[in-house]
Amino acid sequence: MTQCGLDVSLSIIGGKWKPLILYHLQDGPTRFSEIRRRVGGISEKVLIQQLRELVAMNVLVRHDHQQVPPVVDYTLTPFGGTLVQALVPLCEWGNQNRARVADML
Amino acid sequence: MTQCGLDVSLSIIGGKWKPLILYHLQDGPTRFSEIRRRVGGISEKVLIQQLRELVAMNVLVRHDHQQVPPVVDYTLTPFGGTLVQALVPLCEWGNQNRARVADML
Repeated sequence: MTQCGLDVSLSIIGGKWKPLILYHLQDGPTRFSEIRRRVGGISEKVLIQQLRELVAMNVLVRHDHQQVPPVVDYTLTPFGGTLVQALVPLCEWGNQNRARVADML
Repeated sequence: MTQCGLDVSLSIIGGKWKPLILYHLQDGPTRFSEIRRRVGGISEKVLIQQLRELVAMNVLVRHDHQQVPPVVDYTLTPFGGTLVQALVPLCEWGNQNRARVADML
């Protein structure tokens, strides 16, 4: 079996921001402003684009509460949930080994 | 906690080949020719370079059996083993969802 499958996973969560966004959406419906606060350092424009792509790939669902001022939140779909579950171990490995890897680079 | 850690993990296994190489080294010491066969489609020159980098980062250990003709094999270090363990879920997610994701792209 030549395939490792990571190429498929990274075709959805590739790039700097998507893993972070998904990682911080594990706790249920989260408002746009709260996602931006948690992810840190991402511009509003980039976050809108990343979220739009994740919704288009059925990883997230966007819910507009039809209020004024507008309230919109994002939630992992069941499909997105399985991806985050597979992503978390690699995130945690990175956190646990951040210093060690930094010394090596 | 802003960090998700995937950036650290990908600093070691980023790129097309390294995840595949590590994925196929789960079964113990593996000879260069066998790695090349399992990974499929990688040139000798590129595989030598990728393996050298993984040895330099203490993910693999290279063992030269001092024989003629030369026999060299590669084995995951304990450190490399923890990385592969964290990598496998994302690889398997990719394999399980390859068709579904292909339809979306």
